[in-house]
Amino acid sequence: MEVNNGDATAVEVPESLSSVIPGWFSEISPMWPGEAHSLKVEKILFQGKSDYQNVVVFQSSTYGKVLVLDGVIQLTERDECAYQEMITHLPLCSIPNPKKVLVIGGGDGGVLREVARYSSVEKIDICEIDKMVVDVSKQFFPGVAVGYDDPRVTLHVGDGVAFLKAVPEGTYDAVIVDSSDPIGPAQELFKKPFFASVAKALRPGGVVCTQAESIWLHMHIIEDIVANCRQVFKGSVNYAWTTVPTYPRHFSFNIVASLFSGVIGFMLCSTEGPAVDFKHPINPIDADDSHVKTNGPLRFYNSEIHSAAFCLPSFARKVIDSKAN
Amino acid sequence: MEVNNGDATAVEVPESLSSVIPGWFSEISPMWPGEAHSLKVEKILFQGKSDYQNVVVFQSSTYGKVLVLDGVIQLTERDECAYQEMITHLPLCSIPNPKKVLVIGGGDGGVLREVARYSSVEKIDICEIDKMVVDVSKQFFPGVAVGYDDPRVTLHVGDGVAFLKAVPEGTYDAVIVDSSDPIGPAQELFKKPFFASVAKALRPGGVVCTQAESIWLHMHIIEDIVANCRQVFKGSVNYAWTTVPTYPRHFSFNIVASLFSGVIGFMLCSTEGPAVDFKHPINPIDADDSHVKTNGPLRFYNSEIHSAAFCLPSFARKVIDSKAN
Repeated sequence: MEVNNGDATAVEVPESLSSVIPGWFSEISPMWPGEAHSLKVEKILFQGKSDYQNVVVFQSSTYGKVLVLDGVIQLTERDECAYQEMITHLPLCSIPNPKKVLVIGGGDGGVLREVARYSSVEKIDICEIDKMVVDVSKQFFPGVAVGYDDPRVTLHVGDGVAFLKAVPEGTYDAVIVDSSDPIGPAQELFKKPFFASVAKALRPGGVVCTQAESIWLHMHIIEDIVANCRQVFKGSVNYAWTTVPTYPRHFSFNIVASLFSGVIGFMLCSTEGPAVDFKHPINPIDADDSHVKTNGPLRFYNSEIHSAAFCLPSFARKVIDSKAN
Repeated sequence: MEVNNGDATAVEVPESLSSVIPGWFSEISPMWPGEAHSLKVEKILFQGKSDYQNVVVFQSSTYGKVLVLDGVIQLTERDECAYQEMITHLPLCSIPNPKKVLVIGGGDGGVLREVARYSSVEKIDICEIDKMVVDVSKQFFPGVAVGYDDPRVTLHVGDGVAFLKAVPEGTYDAVIVDSSDPIGPAQELFKKPFFASVAKALRPGGVVCTQAESIWLHMHIIEDIVANCRQVFKGSVNYAWTTVPTYPRHFSFNIVASLFSGVIGFMLCSTEGPAVDFKHPINPIDADDSHVKTNGPLRFYNSEIHSAAFCLPSFARKVIDSKAN
């Protein structure tokens, strides 16, 4: 682990950040060469290189602290609530009494923080490949990494695909895949064999939520994901979406375009068994405030926005309905 | 009117576009100095200077043709449907048989295109201050300006505030304010006297829809708008929002931040009279395909997304509910 936790006060953009504008964080993606996006770097707080990626934390001028992996913004303090709350509560509010939950990826701990709101939950496993992400989150994003403080959490550092294969059949009530993008290391997480492993790891009527791209930009990819899920998950298969202004989280190939789109989608699927109606949450976390004391108030999620997330613009509904039915 | 309708094939960024990155369209706003955004300019198609503003049209690499006024992106071919359809159908689907409709601003014609879908509509007035915007839209954005072809449309070139003052009481069923931002020339359009003029121009139980900022960025401004509307409109007062990836439309002071947010909001209000329940559309334009032949299919709007638009994230709901009740 190379660590430089940045006493440097000068604004200096490291090489791992592309430098279209000196002093600005910019990314131009080879997949989306026509777009660039910049975010003013006030101060670099951390630079390191793990076995898997370059890790940078900087203070931005308007979005608080920003975590960057291999040149890709993963989260900002300002808007992380939208993603973390939606990817967690869309699945967990849709089933009664979730007890065992698995998180794949999500090393920053934000999803753990949200899962920990459920008093019914007994066991939270997380499988993150990169320990440095965990450590950096704990150091610089305590409000996100607070999820690790929950005694129900067990961290497994390793490959999510391998971890899932070893899971006994029917172990989990819910699996949340807080993964990176479908090209590069995480590409397997969008394919049928992975979805089949997830389905096997879930109990009958168990649920999965996986991040699933932007309706504005990736309808062709979403179409494939929906078709794959339809073949694997014999319960229900749904697409939901939400707004995340800086959404670039885990989209290394299209960070810039994601920033343009400002939305991120989720696949919500259930296995054969007790029916799950994702559009009508039966386990509303916002109806009970007992979690607020330890985990803080919900900033984004509520039951209304849960249901609304499944209402798609016409252009997206047309494509997704054609695959889902 | 200075016109240069650009036979130039070279990619040359005019001075009226800021030039952080040569060859890219970039904006850095004084209101949001920490953010910048760029969109690749493939070819400048038009440059002109009207009595009110600099007008530029360029071909972008990923968002089609882009209209820029005083350095601010107003619309892109790729995502204009979201804004135009939502700002129009949210109000018009909420009342029975709209007959007389006034559009303030909206010189590109996109809102007219959407209003023209209603067979009940007999008269569509539009008051746009800048004739060059109309002409440029007709030349470069025929799919948007097609709204002007409808024989029910009357274009009034002039100031919207003055036009409204001269309107006889109770003239319109609906007013749509497709305005620019609340600082600069359009600032009056966000204040109580303007809302009072709108209320006067509306019939009892008439409706107004006005663009109303981003929940991610402008809650303090939205708070004031809601409070103002609550005082003026004695029917219902609601806030709705939608996703517009490049949303910069009319936000000259915070274009960059808007691009970050990817959302735009709308105030939906009704005057005293027959009650209007904006959240449940009673005049669904998507239930009848007769408009599709002349106006093309709806790309974004549907009745589901209409209702969903009123579901707010918790942080926004908290502020807006406190002002609205």
